[in-house]
Amino acid sequence: MQISASEDKIPVVGSTSTPQCNTEGLYFSDGRRKVDYVLVFHQRRHSSIRCPVGTSVSQDRLSIVSNGNFPQSVSSDAVAGRGGGMPGEEAANAGEVFMELGFAGGSEPTEPADHEMRLIRQEFEANLLEAGLEIERDKEVKAHGPSFTRLHAPWPVLCREAEFLKIKVPTKTSYELKEESGFGSSMSTIWRKLNQPFQPKVPHQDHERTKFLSHCFSRDKLHLYNITSKDTFFDNATRGRIVYEILRRTVCVRTCQTIGISTLIAKGVYDAAFPLHDGDYRVIGHLEERNDRQVLHEEWARYSAFYKYQPIDLVRKYFGEKIGLYFAWLGVYTQLLIPASIVGIIVFGYGVATVDTDIPSLEMCDERLNFTMCPLCDGACDFWQLSTACGTARASHLFDNPATVFFAIFMSLWAVLFLEHWKRRQISLSFSWDLTGIEEDEEHPRPRYETILLQKRQRKQKKKKNKKKNEPEKQEDGTVTGKDRWRQKLLSAMTAGIPTAIDKLTWKDRLPGYFINVSSILFMFGLTFSAVFGVIVYRITVSALMAMSPDPETKSNVRVTVTATAVIINLVVILILDEIYGAVAVWLTELEIPKTETNFEERLILKAFLLKFMNAYAPIFYVAFFKGRFAGRPGNYVYVFNDYRMEECAPGGCLIELCIQLSIIMLGKQLIQNNIFEIGIPKLKKLVRALKDKGSAETEKEEERPPQQWNLDHALAAFEGLTPEYMEMIIQFGFVSLFVASFPLAPLFALLNNVIEIRLDAKKFVTELRRPVAIRAKDIGIWYNILSGMGKFSVIINAFVISFTSDFIPRLVYQYTYSQTGTMHGFIDYTLSYFNVSNFKPGTAPQNSGDITVCRYKDYREPPWSPDAYQFSKQYWCVLAARLAFVILFQNLVMFLSLVVAWVIPDVPKTIMEQLKREKKLLVDVFLREEKEKFQLIQSLFAKDTTLQPGSHTLQPGQGPPIPGRYSTLPPGPTQAGDGGGGPRARCRAASFSQFTRKNPSTLPRNENENSRHTAV
Amino acid sequence: MQISASEDKIPVVGSTSTPQCNTEGLYFSDGRRKVDYVLVFHQRRHSSIRCPVGTSVSQDRLSIVSNGNFPQSVSSDAVAGRGGGMPGEEAANAGEVFMELGFAGGSEPTEPADHEMRLIRQEFEANLLEAGLEIERDKEVKAHGPSFTRLHAPWPVLCREAEFLKIKVPTKTSYELKEESGFGSSMSTIWRKLNQPFQPKVPHQDHERTKFLSHCFSRDKLHLYNITSKDTFFDNATRGRIVYEILRRTVCVRTCQTIGISTLIAKGVYDAAFPLHDGDYRVIGHLEERNDRQVLHEEWARYSAFYKYQPIDLVRKYFGEKIGLYFAWLGVYTQLLIPASIVGIIVFGYGVATVDTDIPSLEMCDERLNFTMCPLCDGACDFWQLSTACGTARASHLFDNPATVFFAIFMSLWAVLFLEHWKRRQISLSFSWDLTGIEEDEEHPRPRYETILLQKRQRKQKKKKNKKKNEPEKQEDGTVTGKDRWRQKLLSAMTAGIPTAIDKLTWKDRLPGYFINVSSILFMFGLTFSAVFGVIVYRITVSALMAMSPDPETKSNVRVTVTATAVIINLVVILILDEIYGAVAVWLTELEIPKTETNFEERLILKAFLLKFMNAYAPIFYVAFFKGRFAGRPGNYVYVFNDYRMEECAPGGCLIELCIQLSIIMLGKQLIQNNIFEIGIPKLKKLVRALKDKGSAETEKEEERPPQQWNLDHALAAFEGLTPEYMEMIIQFGFVSLFVASFPLAPLFALLNNVIEIRLDAKKFVTELRRPVAIRAKDIGIWYNILSGMGKFSVIINAFVISFTSDFIPRLVYQYTYSQTGTMHGFIDYTLSYFNVSNFKPGTAPQNSGDITVCRYKDYREPPWSPDAYQFSKQYWCVLAARLAFVILFQNLVMFLSLVVAWVIPDVPKTIMEQLKREKKLLVDVFLREEKEKFQLIQSLFAKDTTLQPGSHTLQPGQGPPIPGRYSTLPPGPTQAGDGGGGPRARCRAASFSQFTRKNPSTLPRNENENSRHTAV
Repeated sequence: MQISASEDKIPVVGSTSTPQCNTEGLYFSDGRRKVDYVLVFHQRRHSSIRCPVGTSVSQDRLSIVSNGNFPQSVSSDAVAGRGGGMPGEEAANAGEVFMELGFAGGSEPTEPADHEMRLIRQEFEANLLEAGLEIERDKEVKAHGPSFTRLHAPWPVLCREAEFLKIKVPTKTSYELKEESGFGSSMSTIWRKLNQPFQPKVPHQDHERTKFLSHCFSRDKLHLYNITSKDTFFDNATRGRIVYEILRRTVCVRTCQTIGISTLIAKGVYDAAFPLHDGDYRVIGHLEERNDRQVLHEEWARYSAFYKYQPIDLVRKYFGEKIGLYFAWLGVYTQLLIPASIVGIIVFGYGVATVDTDIPSLEMCDERLNFTMCPLCDGACDFWQLSTACGTARASHLFDNPATVFFAIFMSLWAVLFLEHWKRRQISLSFSWDLTGIEEDEEHPRPRYETILLQKRQRKQKKKKNKKKNEPEKQEDGTVTGKDRWRQKLLSAMTAGIPTAIDKLTWKDRLPGYFINVSSILFMFGLTFSAVFGVIVYRITVSALMAMSPDPETKSNVRVTVTATAVIINLVVILILDEIYGAVAVWLTELEIPKTETNFEERLILKAFLLKFMNAYAPIFYVAFFKGRFAGRPGNYVYVFNDYRMEECAPGGCLIELCIQLSIIMLGKQLIQNNIFEIGIPKLKKLVRALKDKGSAETEKEEERPPQQWNLDHALAAFEGLTPEYMEMIIQFGFVSLFVASFPLAPLFALLNNVIEIRLDAKKFVTELRRPVAIRAKDIGIWYNILSGMGKFSVIINAFVISFTSDFIPRLVYQYTYSQTGTMHGFIDYTLSYFNVSNFKPGTAPQNSGDITVCRYKDYREPPWSPDAYQFSKQYWCVLAARLAFVILFQNLVMFLSLVVAWVIPDVPKTIMEQLKREKKLLVDVFLREEKEKFQLIQSLFAKDTTLQPGSHTLQPGQGPPIPGRYSTLPPGPTQAGDGGGGPRARCRAASFSQFTRKNPSTLPRNENENSRHTAV
Repeated sequence: MQISASEDKIPVVGSTSTPQCNTEGLYFSDGRRKVDYVLVFHQRRHSSIRCPVGTSVSQDRLSIVSNGNFPQSVSSDAVAGRGGGMPGEEAANAGEVFMELGFAGGSEPTEPADHEMRLIRQEFEANLLEAGLEIERDKEVKAHGPSFTRLHAPWPVLCREAEFLKIKVPTKTSYELKEESGFGSSMSTIWRKLNQPFQPKVPHQDHERTKFLSHCFSRDKLHLYNITSKDTFFDNATRGRIVYEILRRTVCVRTCQTIGISTLIAKGVYDAAFPLHDGDYRVIGHLEERNDRQVLHEEWARYSAFYKYQPIDLVRKYFGEKIGLYFAWLGVYTQLLIPASIVGIIVFGYGVATVDTDIPSLEMCDERLNFTMCPLCDGACDFWQLSTACGTARASHLFDNPATVFFAIFMSLWAVLFLEHWKRRQISLSFSWDLTGIEEDEEHPRPRYETILLQKRQRKQKKKKNKKKNEPEKQEDGTVTGKDRWRQKLLSAMTAGIPTAIDKLTWKDRLPGYFINVSSILFMFGLTFSAVFGVIVYRITVSALMAMSPDPETKSNVRVTVTATAVIINLVVILILDEIYGAVAVWLTELEIPKTETNFEERLILKAFLLKFMNAYAPIFYVAFFKGRFAGRPGNYVYVFNDYRMEECAPGGCLIELCIQLSIIMLGKQLIQNNIFEIGIPKLKKLVRALKDKGSAETEKEEERPPQQWNLDHALAAFEGLTPEYMEMIIQFGFVSLFVASFPLAPLFALLNNVIEIRLDAKKFVTELRRPVAIRAKDIGIWYNILSGMGKFSVIINAFVISFTSDFIPRLVYQYTYSQTGTMHGFIDYTLSYFNVSNFKPGTAPQNSGDITVCRYKDYREPPWSPDAYQFSKQYWCVLAARLAFVILFQNLVMFLSLVVAWVIPDVPKTIMEQLKREKKLLVDVFLREEKEKFQLIQSLFAKDTTLQPGSHTLQPGQGPPIPGRYSTLPPGPTQAGDGGGGPRARCRAASFSQFTRKNPSTLPRNENENSRHTAV
């Protein structure tokens, strides 16, 4: 076949030395060129059946391909070969349909045939060569299994791309960071000493006092940069990013009209593409020369380092800014949880300490007060004494006390502080990581978007064709040029996004997607609510059944049993739905056909957040705001299914139930998701993969060599984005902020979780995932907005929890308006209304009521002897007004304080501001100095010139002495007048000459004086 | 004296042609060089006494000084001359004290002597020459009166500074803006046609469909820009800005250690510095060749153009971005007031239409219902019938109806929409004005800050000296070098802000300022409140006195008279305090010693805003939320000064009073401030100035020549910043947003005011002010925050106005809970409580009560026959709860809607986003093309090279053909290895050669193919 023959034609340039690899396969077989990226594809079995074994062997022999004269014949051959490999009927109408085929392959359910894939790979890799990359292929003959194509970016390519990507690199110019003097200095020394044990042992962190000025890389200014070795000037992450950038934009037009590696992976042409890790993460030999991965593993990705700061700079260096920002964010969050936890513990401690002096709970426990309460269920239940609920009342006080109000305000401000602090930290990081002023990278459309767009185009073209067929066709000889024009148009459209006929999908194309989206989300909301309702029904029915049971043991444990089981059911439902919703969100977002990856991510995040948030918080919201509010009153209860009374809150208030619900869901979710989903499932997957590989390896029986780094990395799991990590933390942030008024220990549990979470994630990134491509990002994106929205939402939620769920407001109202003595004595009596037993509906009264005529229930209603009995009393309205006023007060106070806090804390830290100013000044300085020296030089040139030919005002280049390299921005020769721009430019130069040469040379010393002033800066 | 002699030494270079000036004095006397900036100083009379007349004449003869060999002797002479002109005692201890003198001159109450000023001017202008500017002085002999120093920036200086300031200029590369197709296109054509009469007739606005790519100016890339003429490439505003930039940073070290023109103006060395207007604003001759100022005057700065759009681009071109943004903002605000006004009129119309069917007001007017109301004052007043208050009830309905609630929500969303719309407009403008990515300019400290800092330094140094004196001094011979070191240190500190001993003022220095600040602001708050309280007392006493008057005419007009007079008093107080507070704010901000001008402005704005806001709104807040709430109840009234009952609201509700208050203050403030302060006072000032000038001119008797442009401009008032303009609008925005629920016509009045305001401001800028320096700004700064904060505040204020001031909630509550029929019948009865006349305190009952036993009053209290008589009733609490619930609902609903609106409207308009993307692509394209061509060129060079000496891999420059000018970034020769940077660079180049030369030349056609692809983009 022609295909493999053409692949053979790629000449083997470069060293064909023995494939002994040093440093564990991080280099090409010549041991010098670093492997910057690896492309993996599988030779499939059926392909080896199709192709003769001989060609397969010759094709897979070691072929290091460097840039060289790439034979022109390849492309034409490839096209021809493709035409030959095609089914005859399609090759026949090669005219306008020609370019559609490659696309159609992607959109059709069947993948392109294997030989077609090989052709695509062949073209793609040829284009990579053309872009300047160097390629090495596997030496061994492999009939199937993964094959590796290793890429190396040589220095010129790195330079070109770094300039193109505006990568900032350190220059030689450095400056000392200001040392604090006096008291501040000694304080910071002490602080540093105290902090020492918490600092990770990372090399090269001691030159913290000097900062190198960074500048966008430019090949014209190489003399400015601190280049010690061209191999290490760009670190591995940057190299990987550069190669990825080339891979991303390399087109593949002849065989498969696509752009970029991700489309090829989506089409199955390649299986994977990843940069290599820096080597093994286990330290085998001596400790001195640890690679970055080993350092990270030792100092960061282990549980025993939990008390240490994270080596964020190293994380960023190794994994790129996006992942670095995630861990920095997680670190800031965890750090700020410490004060929140401490305050939470103190608040809880206050509750514990005051539980024995709290009058309402003492009154509730006091048997002498003898409150006879109305029965909790119809018929089967009896009247009961309030003092039997003493336990819950006391427990309730632990969480429902005045300190909680303070804590709610504190936590709202804490959330604002956290966000502000993070903003500052982000700016500091983006300053020290040289991210200031980076722009969003232009993104190519997602493969799916392209496919759908193409389908649309095809449909439209077919329509047009059908129209044309009806008309008499005349320009038949124009097909070839027409085809060329078509292709060029398409190419330009693909590479630059300029509109051809159909340039984008409109809302019409997306309408079905949106429709399914909205209905699915509504459906899932319904699902969540029905799950909550199901648990309510479970609770009602089971407690009714248990209450009817004759066993007194069962009866007494009704509440505990039912609550515990119901919460566990809730938890399980949440966990299951969480996973389902995650998958559904991806599916729904695909349906929307977002254009770019960023777009996709944002929509996915929003959807997933909405669904998961609803899922996690719906039961909690129910308990906090709805439970017990629709129970009705004695004699007029509300029934579900005509038979079961709606549930009421515990006698101690709903807050304690909210607290139980919250703590169990939070803890359960964290424990289970952390342990099972994050540790267990990856382990399981690894096991499965290992077993599978083993199976295939056994049949192969050719794995003698020690595995290369790319084999090792290929065996790891692919990196799948940070969304799940962030999502987990955001939901947790909700637990910490939204209902914190009811559970002051939430920050503590979150802190404990996060300390583990950091190391767990770190372990995963260092040891279990392929190295992700280093992605630049200057912030955490949409997550910040979600966090900030959540912070705002938490204010109103906490206001409502305090005023409606807790007993704080009724107590205040009682103490300051109704209480005779100004104390809380009599509060319980005040909260209980009277009910005349004779008003029970028939059949609902307790069977053995005895001589009780009046029972009490918790509500503010008129007593039976009032003219409007059982109506809401004046107290009810009074308390309600107080509750509402509190909400307004709390919300606006906290919002105002938040604004003040956000306003007082400047977004940009003062030190950073000063450094920025200094850097700017230094840059200006460098600029001015170059300017001055340039003029001086020209002047000296001109002086020479005039001595030769006086009166001439234009500089004749090449006549003067050689110009030093640093004035490379100087024009090298007379400008061509062809474009009209050279004229003024030359004139400008001449003018500046005349300006400076007119000056007496005796002023030069003064210039130098000024110069030294600048350098003294 | 030596001084003037040294001034003489500046040689007269350039043309000494006759001083006939063409184009009305916009040029130097050679008629070619544009006057870019004018410095004005006054020759004072006493100076002519000091100096001999002869020198003064010779010094002031026409001296055009261009850049040339500036004599070295000047500086040394000047220093010597200064030493000579100094009092002996000071010159004696010239050692370390030397440099302090210049400073001390500024800090001492007396200004530096006139000859010293001349020295300073002399040095400053010499430094300007050195910076490349060209200078022309007045020809005439002038013993006193203003003298003008005119500056011109030649092309090389413009180039240098434009590069330095990163001024973006249009390149030759342009692209067509996307034309909408199909329906959208025809729509936009219709829209454009409809809009035609509203468009100002401004030339050069028709090429709207093409946009030129802009790029930071760089002398290396002159061929990229569209330079037709070097004189007009930079417009006048830009030239002025460039010269200002030079003036701002030019130092004056020998005579007066300062930086920049503003300090010199502050010290009185110069009187003024301004760029010139473009000529007269009156069109005298033919219309075709109007200058920009004339166009602006014709098309913008006249009332008859009120219906037109503003020529914002021209405004920006003429006045710079900052002023352009102000007018753009004002335009957007005014435009958006149109829909608000329309909705406001509709809402008001709804009130008018429904006033005859509104049951509560009908009931109030119904005499048959016969509500006997309790007397309005003690003793003197009688019981009265509610139906007599029919008028206010009907008027009240005009503003207090359900539509108002809708309007309040509408206006809150309107405010958000306005801000979002402005954000978009701002981004559009900053895109089309090429402001994207501009950085904040580095600012020098304000003169006052420098002075205070110097005083501090001096104090510290004196202390040191005193210390030193106690120690034995040894290094006496080191004084000279020590002095030099000192000076250099100071210089470097001044130019670069790097710390010397004392580098900044700390909070300790500012403590007294802060203290005075806080106490003054508190005092002024107190003043405002006492003014409000004074008016209250006036109202109470006058109405009490009038009620006691025997004249029934007086009695019946009590309310109208008192309200009207009180509001007018309020208005007058507000207007007076407004002016006082404006001045006090400036004074207080000076006391804080802010470091930079921006800093100063921000603090001033905040303070002035706070004070003026309090001032304007305190009486309105009182009426809205406090009036009538502390009046007590019959039998238990609240008294002020033990004698006067607190005032109550009118029977129709407080809303009508709020409405009156609001409308009178708003209208009065606008009318008076617009007419008197903005038109009258400047006219008056001009008159005074003209009279003064006339007086001095008469004594001179030498003004024969027609006045030059600089004379004309000098006669105008100086530009004093935009703060007052913004402030006025922001306060107005408060009227429109804060209490809009009570006065739906506010937007209409604001609209009418603004239509005039725009033209008034425009007139002022075009005809009455000196041309301001064009200042770059990418947004309106702190005003946006104030607006946004006001928008947020308005939500809660409107919520409270609707729920507490208006009767909306009580009506709702009545209709849905108490009304038997579900209608409003009986509402008036429901709102009135009963009072038993026998419960009046002795002496407070009306004298002639007749047979009335029970009177009614507006409140929700228990009737006299209830067990807890006169306590708040259940209705009270119920209504209160409803009111509070409404506040919560309203606030959160509106906040949520605002968030949604802000989220739905993207900050960056889609078209701009697309254009940005296209521009970026074009830039990349240009980059890639240059890259490719460069390589091709090198390749061809190399091909030649290898034929000469095969195997050589380094390019020998000078051997190849001349390199075209556009590859000026190419290194011109072998790099010097001196700085270590040339090495890798040369290597990099060599590598790229080898990479590209290895490629077969036969691939070149394909390269070109790709190239054409890029150009097709």
